[in-house]
Amino acid sequence: MGSWNLVFNTFEPENEPLREALCTLGNGYFATRGAWAQSDAGDVHYPGTYLACLYNRLKTEIKGRTIENEDLVNIPNWLPLRVRILKGKWFEISKSEILDFYQELDMKSGILLRNLSFRDVHGHETRLKERRLVHMKYPHLAGIELCIKPLNWTGMIEIVSAIDGSVTNSGVARYRSLNGKHLKTEETGDAGERGIFLKTRTVQSDISIALAADHSLYLDNSPLDTKGELLLDENIVARTFVADVPSGSEFRIEKTLALYNSRDKAISECGLQAKKAVSRAPSFDKLVTEHDLAWKKLWQRFEMSFVLKNAQKNDDESLILNMNIFHLLQTISPNSIDLDTGVPSRGWHGEAYRGHIFWDELFIFPFLNMRIPEITRSLLMYRYRRLDEARHAAVKEGFKGAMYPWQSGSDGREESQKLHLNPKSGRWIPDNSRLQRHVNAAIAYNVCKYYEVTGDMEFLSSYGAEMVIEIARFWADISTYNDKTGRYEILGVMGPDEYHEAYPGAEKPGLDNNAYTNVMAVWVLKEALKILQIIPEGRDHELRGKIKLKQEELEKWKDIGKKMTIAFHDGSIISQFEGYENLKEFQWDEYKKKYVDIQRLDRILEAEGDSTNNYRASKQADVLMLFYLFSAEELESLFEGLGYSLTPDMIPENIEYYSKRTSHGSSLSRLVHSWVLVRSQREKSWTLFKEALKSDYSDIQGGTTPEGIHLGAMAGSVNIIQEAYTGLETRENVLWFNCCLPDELEKIMMNIHYRGHDLEIEVACDRLTVKSLSSVGEHVRVGINEMIYKIGGKETITFDT
Amino acid sequence: MGSWNLVFNTFEPENEPLREALCTLGNGYFATRGAWAQSDAGDVHYPGTYLACLYNRLKTEIKGRTIENEDLVNIPNWLPLRVRILKGKWFEISKSEILDFYQELDMKSGILLRNLSFRDVHGHETRLKERRLVHMKYPHLAGIELCIKPLNWTGMIEIVSAIDGSVTNSGVARYRSLNGKHLKTEETGDAGERGIFLKTRTVQSDISIALAADHSLYLDNSPLDTKGELLLDENIVARTFVADVPSGSEFRIEKTLALYNSRDKAISECGLQAKKAVSRAPSFDKLVTEHDLAWKKLWQRFEMSFVLKNAQKNDDESLILNMNIFHLLQTISPNSIDLDTGVPSRGWHGEAYRGHIFWDELFIFPFLNMRIPEITRSLLMYRYRRLDEARHAAVKEGFKGAMYPWQSGSDGREESQKLHLNPKSGRWIPDNSRLQRHVNAAIAYNVCKYYEVTGDMEFLSSYGAEMVIEIARFWADISTYNDKTGRYEILGVMGPDEYHEAYPGAEKPGLDNNAYTNVMAVWVLKEALKILQIIPEGRDHELRGKIKLKQEELEKWKDIGKKMTIAFHDGSIISQFEGYENLKEFQWDEYKKKYVDIQRLDRILEAEGDSTNNYRASKQADVLMLFYLFSAEELESLFEGLGYSLTPDMIPENIEYYSKRTSHGSSLSRLVHSWVLVRSQREKSWTLFKEALKSDYSDIQGGTTPEGIHLGAMAGSVNIIQEAYTGLETRENVLWFNCCLPDELEKIMMNIHYRGHDLEIEVACDRLTVKSLSSVGEHVRVGINEMIYKIGGKETITFDT
Repeated sequence: MGSWNLVFNTFEPENEPLREALCTLGNGYFATRGAWAQSDAGDVHYPGTYLACLYNRLKTEIKGRTIENEDLVNIPNWLPLRVRILKGKWFEISKSEILDFYQELDMKSGILLRNLSFRDVHGHETRLKERRLVHMKYPHLAGIELCIKPLNWTGMIEIVSAIDGSVTNSGVARYRSLNGKHLKTEETGDAGERGIFLKTRTVQSDISIALAADHSLYLDNSPLDTKGELLLDENIVARTFVADVPSGSEFRIEKTLALYNSRDKAISECGLQAKKAVSRAPSFDKLVTEHDLAWKKLWQRFEMSFVLKNAQKNDDESLILNMNIFHLLQTISPNSIDLDTGVPSRGWHGEAYRGHIFWDELFIFPFLNMRIPEITRSLLMYRYRRLDEARHAAVKEGFKGAMYPWQSGSDGREESQKLHLNPKSGRWIPDNSRLQRHVNAAIAYNVCKYYEVTGDMEFLSSYGAEMVIEIARFWADISTYNDKTGRYEILGVMGPDEYHEAYPGAEKPGLDNNAYTNVMAVWVLKEALKILQIIPEGRDHELRGKIKLKQEELEKWKDIGKKMTIAFHDGSIISQFEGYENLKEFQWDEYKKKYVDIQRLDRILEAEGDSTNNYRASKQADVLMLFYLFSAEELESLFEGLGYSLTPDMIPENIEYYSKRTSHGSSLSRLVHSWVLVRSQREKSWTLFKEALKSDYSDIQGGTTPEGIHLGAMAGSVNIIQEAYTGLETRENVLWFNCCLPDELEKIMMNIHYRGHDLEIEVACDRLTVKSLSSVGEHVRVGINEMIYKIGGKETITFDT
Repeated sequence: MGSWNLVFNTFEPENEPLREALCTLGNGYFATRGAWAQSDAGDVHYPGTYLACLYNRLKTEIKGRTIENEDLVNIPNWLPLRVRILKGKWFEISKSEILDFYQELDMKSGILLRNLSFRDVHGHETRLKERRLVHMKYPHLAGIELCIKPLNWTGMIEIVSAIDGSVTNSGVARYRSLNGKHLKTEETGDAGERGIFLKTRTVQSDISIALAADHSLYLDNSPLDTKGELLLDENIVARTFVADVPSGSEFRIEKTLALYNSRDKAISECGLQAKKAVSRAPSFDKLVTEHDLAWKKLWQRFEMSFVLKNAQKNDDESLILNMNIFHLLQTISPNSIDLDTGVPSRGWHGEAYRGHIFWDELFIFPFLNMRIPEITRSLLMYRYRRLDEARHAAVKEGFKGAMYPWQSGSDGREESQKLHLNPKSGRWIPDNSRLQRHVNAAIAYNVCKYYEVTGDMEFLSSYGAEMVIEIARFWADISTYNDKTGRYEILGVMGPDEYHEAYPGAEKPGLDNNAYTNVMAVWVLKEALKILQIIPEGRDHELRGKIKLKQEELEKWKDIGKKMTIAFHDGSIISQFEGYENLKEFQWDEYKKKYVDIQRLDRILEAEGDSTNNYRASKQADVLMLFYLFSAEELESLFEGLGYSLTPDMIPENIEYYSKRTSHGSSLSRLVHSWVLVRSQREKSWTLFKEALKSDYSDIQGGTTPEGIHLGAMAGSVNIIQEAYTGLETRENVLWFNCCLPDELEKIMMNIHYRGHDLEIEVACDRLTVKSLSSVGEHVRVGINEMIYKIGGKETITFDT
């Protein structure tokens, strides 16, 4: 079902960085692009590496032999594999005459193929065929197969296969003036009689990374017993293999790689383990078979598809939906469950944002929750392990409870930059993004949603409750009581919209009473109170004792839940923050004419000596996030509790108001706007959905995708299919549906997992079909049109919608 | 309730090693004795260290200053704290005149106290008071407080506080000829202005261990601002502090320690983290308060007590029961849950068995299952992570499935020794203990029991099922069909009884059809078939695909379940193995007279040129393990399925037969014998129980406890209270009781946790009271006298028994 192959039929040097990002391979343990060494910035400890790419550079000479080449694609490469024929020059795609070219990312099987032929200056024509994989069943293994066929000549082919420890982080142009060298080589050597081995260590975080590669060589499928020649240099280890190949014959090398690091479990020493693993690895063909099988199983759970009503041949939405899911699974998969890892907003696909964790989980977890919730649990545990650091951060700023950082990595400390570069003006600008305290609300929200989907009381009572309560404490403490208004306020923070970080001309950063932050704070306080009611009493006692929670704190929480400030203007408009209405209106048309792409209005205005702080202009959804996260009923009830009235007509008014004033400068913006328009403006919603879906495929920000995909946007757009169009919602032990397909869609099909049950869901415009796939276990409850049905056994229920 | 303080009122140099073992402190993350560096032997990666002990040695000179002393207690010490007065000799307890001495391990609070006064050669009298803890709430912290009071003099007191990276593993005499140096120093330095810091690395496994200590000094409770003097040497870092102290005043030092290692989660680099943690650590008093609170919470879950009918003042059973539970919690606690750690059979209390994992979990998990089953889950995950290694071990021996090793550590490979030393004869003897394949049955049994107690289908379907099925496969494959008998056999293995590893005079090791092994194999095969029925179908498909399980394999499993061989002799006696009846009877009385202690008969006979292989003499329970693990009904049904009849009278006959022929040379033996006699010979059971309970307290093997406690025996004896005397059993979603108190006991009280419910249990001779402590959650089902009752809310139900 759907399209599965991302195909490129031409070689286009200028598009190569984007293609490399979109063709990144990973398995939730390591990826072919995300560079481990980012740990130096104190980041996520996660073993990314660069896997052999036929036209990546091999940097150095080795033992005096000139193997060096610098291909046009300046992507550093841990695992080069270079070829030359007839003692000529080493093959460089950009300096060769390409006769044909075919590249395919087979997402169903997780395999990247390249097939090309070229002619050298002497007229020798050669075919190169390459298959690559990062193994989904054996997460420490990866492999590349390269076939070389002389088409019109006979003679010597040389291959050099290396592990290059001199690799740097240099994938993001604006970081290149920073130190990109994060590795020091500890050991180079062999791994078995045909293998190579390199052990390296990150400079700051002191993590060892061991890579062992083994090789098998064939001539026309007959194994060659050449062991090649081992070359050891300071930071590089390589083997060269040579063969005389008749015209029309095929010389094949299989390079199998094992990667371990010193934080892996169930190992003795990572170097030993890497060598052991590569020596036990099956043949490349067997690897492919097992890999394919693992992907099949994964897709059984994760596949999601839709049928367009008037499908055209070149509709690519299905392909891109699969691509987005594929990249989610490259970054986080069942292989991530036992790791101490978070979800980096750029995947492991590039070096942008240095692998940091932001709030993107909020957009990513819903998709995981309904398929393999243990992945979410593991990612929430990543947050739990950093709760102490968040407590410390709160104390440092004079607050109670836990204050999670806006950007974080390895040890969970705040790692947001304090300055950032505007490439447009060349100026370094103070960066106050760390004032986005709302990340705490997102974490609490994720805990509560995970519990609602799974009913995992064990997690909630042992870990989740503690996080939510400590975050609630923080919100209660950062909330100050205003005697004049008789209401609580949250002052000096930032909302999700990064165009606003201070009042016009203000010296102090931060804004007061950001509506999104304040409502989320109230919601968290209410949830924390609920949680204290539902966790087992013994655990409740233990927890209150452990964190010294006092009854009077709970009284304050309740009070805030009645008296938090929400500012309004123009009658029904929820002010993004207090005083928003005093900002100037922005001249959108004028700037669109002048700059065409005004997604990064902040940079444009700063270069002009102006500031987005001065205007009613948003980078992304801020107030509208509320309509994204909550149903109208939930929100009405929250507002009512605060003594405000949110009438049904106010919602479209607010959507209209802010839609007009948003530049979508964040990849997360369009999907939120698409979501909130699902029921009121179906056509516009569909258009925005398609744009959000293609954020990375089309690199709509013009150059950011090669620096790393945007995982929040990818998952968020997938989630529009899963939840916005189906109205899927988990609430009070019921799986609710409230379908609302856009006109363009005939139906949506997906398998979900809810409370231990596998369910097959089909949503058509007037019909919902729920099929239980398990014959064991209890029934689950499905709600539709205010009726609740039990489903279990191998039942299928069809509802008219 | 019960006794909580292990008190020693005299200093007895010869008993010091035993006392040190019994007074070991730990928190499930690190312990004061278990040495980390055991990882060199490829062992468990677990941060044990030696914590300051007033009379441990400080090995080296530091920067030319003679601080060295070698006290009589030759225990290496990472964290020495030395004292000297008036520029005399450094205090050594063995060379001082001790005026009074008091040592107390307060197990309720997890604090070790020492209080002593001494007189030096010049007549100066001084009091030393010491408190130590390894923190239960903050698992990376530990602390020691030392108070020094001149009683009849005034003058200078010097303290040197060090971290000593030159520490070796030398706690077990017979290992001392092996390399005991497992650490290399990487960095020495300060940690804040009063602190010291050392980072070291294990030689083989390449794990960094960072220790940072900070100091606070007081004179009569007034803080002193001395920063001392920092001394750095190659492998040691120290600070010396000096004060002039008036007679009757008290000079106090608090040394707070943070320990991190490179495998810890949520850290950047372990050295940075250790320094950060120690700088954020609260004061020693605050540490004590929080530690005490954490222990209180722990004891609320883990306390178990009984009342003796005719209690005498010096009855120490209650104290020792608490002590055994205490040491379980030193080794594994909620702090272990997020670690990749197994249960070492000797705790982290010493270096014997090099920290290896055997089968002791079988005796330890029942106690954990009924209190914090997540600990069991985490320990089972330790096994799951090593499933691939077990698969590889099976392949290497030509078997299918997974063959877990008898002894293992870090990476799960087989680490049983191939030779062992008989200290009696001085000879190195071939060691075939790795043929104890029954460890696999224990692992499968543990998975199934964990599932029965918790109903954790998530674990079972994601991890447990795979382990049980792969183990089942191994049993099916090691079972060979004998055409002559028409039955399956398991040849060439060892049972739990290590006195028998081969037939008399045989060249090949191993025995045929060990009854325990064969019955367990059948049980595992049946359980594996059951599991395939109960896990969700989707998962069942995935799993069968992943491990390529074929239907014909299941048919063989069923067939083996009908046709496995069990050998009998003398009519009703289950032969420990086939041909057991051909062995000579052993002259027990003669040898008891000759050697008094014949627990280690194997060593005695080997030294005489004979072998236990030749006799009907067992080191420990073997056939009787069956009666330990299964109820009579379960066992009858298993035998019946095999076409054998196990009549009720056969059980006491077998118990009688083997009891007579067992030397209890294993610490696990008495508890099994006590258990199987609970209903038939209550008095003898009680006597054996008391002996088992005191295994370590009394060091009944004469010297093995100082090398490390025997965790299986400790937990197993506790479990006699929990399950044997109460008849507690979890079966088919019901918590069954079938009480049978020994005459000596008036009642047993304990809190248990079953299916999310906290229950308070009181068992008296004719009355069982079950009180539900939680007011939320579903009911749980309690079974007694073949009736099943639901209990929930805050109900209390009392049953006549």
